[in-house]
Amino acid sequence: MKVVHSDTHESHNPKTYFKGGGFFEPQEVPARVEALLDAVISAGHQIVTPADHGPAPRAAVHTPEYLTFLETIYDRWKAMGSDSDEVLPNIHPGRHMSSMPTGVVGQVGYFTADLSAPIGVGTWEAACGAANTAVHATQLMIEGEKTVYALCRPPGHHAYKDQAGGFCFLNNTAIAAHHATTQLGRVAVLDIDVHHGNGTQGIFYDRSDVLTVSLHCDPTDYYPHYAGYAHERGEGAGLGYNLNLPQAPDTSDEAYLQALETALATIRSFAPAALFVALGLDAHENDPLRGLAVTTGGFNKIARKISSLDLPTVLVQEGGYDRTNLGPNIISVLSGFE
Amino acid sequence: MKVVHSDTHESHNPKTYFKGGGFFEPQEVPARVEALLDAVISAGHQIVTPADHGPAPRAAVHTPEYLTFLETIYDRWKAMGSDSDEVLPNIHPGRHMSSMPTGVVGQVGYFTADLSAPIGVGTWEAACGAANTAVHATQLMIEGEKTVYALCRPPGHHAYKDQAGGFCFLNNTAIAAHHATTQLGRVAVLDIDVHHGNGTQGIFYDRSDVLTVSLHCDPTDYYPHYAGYAHERGEGAGLGYNLNLPQAPDTSDEAYLQALETALATIRSFAPAALFVALGLDAHENDPLRGLAVTTGGFNKIARKISSLDLPTVLVQEGGYDRTNLGPNIISVLSGFE
Repeated sequence: MKVVHSDTHESHNPKTYFKGGGFFEPQEVPARVEALLDAVISAGHQIVTPADHGPAPRAAVHTPEYLTFLETIYDRWKAMGSDSDEVLPNIHPGRHMSSMPTGVVGQVGYFTADLSAPIGVGTWEAACGAANTAVHATQLMIEGEKTVYALCRPPGHHAYKDQAGGFCFLNNTAIAAHHATTQLGRVAVLDIDVHHGNGTQGIFYDRSDVLTVSLHCDPTDYYPHYAGYAHERGEGAGLGYNLNLPQAPDTSDEAYLQALETALATIRSFAPAALFVALGLDAHENDPLRGLAVTTGGFNKIARKISSLDLPTVLVQEGGYDRTNLGPNIISVLSGFE
Repeated sequence: MKVVHSDTHESHNPKTYFKGGGFFEPQEVPARVEALLDAVISAGHQIVTPADHGPAPRAAVHTPEYLTFLETIYDRWKAMGSDSDEVLPNIHPGRHMSSMPTGVVGQVGYFTADLSAPIGVGTWEAACGAANTAVHATQLMIEGEKTVYALCRPPGHHAYKDQAGGFCFLNNTAIAAHHATTQLGRVAVLDIDVHHGNGTQGIFYDRSDVLTVSLHCDPTDYYPHYAGYAHERGEGAGLGYNLNLPQAPDTSDEAYLQALETALATIRSFAPAALFVALGLDAHENDPLRGLAVTTGGFNKIARKISSLDLPTVLVQEGGYDRTNLGPNIISVLSGFE
């Protein structure tokens, strides 16, 4: 299988991860990709370096103000004299205030949802590289590849059209899926990351040409907390084109595969021209952000089922933080598509 | 002058203040009240301990869900096994997600706007004590006192009906003002804290019986960032009953007093039965949260002008963090009312 990969991801190297009232060891780090890349190379997959697809694909999904923010905020933050080498929010607009201020601190909280998306000196370059990787993989799929794996980092599915969050800045999956719609018509996104794909849902919430389906740990007591519930079905023209399948914490293979059948039936009915899998590997039983309890063997079964849709498919890497098992898990997935 | 004071404030003793990407020395600390209390005692003012006015006054302004959250979240947070001894948010709903989750982490971000309102073991007791103090002062005013000073801590004017933020939990000024409306009819709130009184504005935004006027540092690059702009004029029945007068950073006495004339003219036209002054002392030139540059003498001139309205008045303590000048500044204000 062709695996699209760019080493631009290395320039995003978070130093902080704030939750539960304090700083923790960052999880979304360059070593994740090293583990994945080593495994796919060992398994004989073909590594492809992406061409530069320019700013148009990301500008088709994200707002101009947000893209300018991402590109410039690190320098503006440092010019403010902050001691911190990472841009972190401390206040957000919330539901009672709405103005987009021009100042630095206000914009940081306006354009970020949480404290798990620190923006460092190289974040913009890495985010653009990841989006480019997803677009390149999509182009290979459009040109005839049955399944392509976009080894993106940083991940993207928590990023809204104008908001970073949850380790995500540009929504690689959404950028790729939208790019495909311009040439193929209707496409589907199946998000199997353990966390709800809230950003992707938000981006396509009012569209009927992109079906979004997410299978994830129940957000009642799990990130992203405020979205991912079953009652969220889309709005306007998009009503009925979003499906959330929240699973109880610690759900293991059997129940997961059963819920996956519901997801796949919905995708079959939609009859998309192509499929985008937002491929988190953090539903694994050993993931440090433990939500569900999928096994390494389970990932192979999941992949086989998805593969049975017989659709041109782009696998877009999202989360997955257990670096010991990332290699075995990605091989388990990719072999399910071959 | 009667000064209402309760020592319940001591049980709220923040250990953290997160901004600019890291932790700073807390500013909103018990020593603030000690400085204010020493000064008013030395000046011969009469200290009054508030009676218990019960839960009704706070329940008339805040939502039941929010009050339950404030009362119970510390124990729930500790039961979750957090290492942190203060409840701090790390993710917020933002403008794209709206569900109120039942889980702890999600509720913390739902009910708090920022990282400057840490909830500790004694925060609820202190917040209730402060609200009680404001209600007691209001009752004294209703019973005939011309001017009463409610020495509240923690402050309140950034608290919305269902959201904490900016050192604030229960909105003492709003609770007091609403309490007065039930007996006197229409009242006005004049907020002279250096920060916009966003919570108070939000609580009364759709009401025509409470005029809210706030004179503060321009929020473009200053807390609360997302509200406090001149175009915010109220909504529904409240349209025209909110006035924001943002001032350029470093505004000093002369320009401030000129803007105050606009505020007072609006209050005169409204002809309220009583006035509530949200009395921050952080517009002072030496305040560590420096926004404006009012002098100690300037506070006396401000107080004299407000006093010229000749209205029954409750002064509700809000911010002010320069502990060296808090004493002289409060005496400067109180003497302007006598």
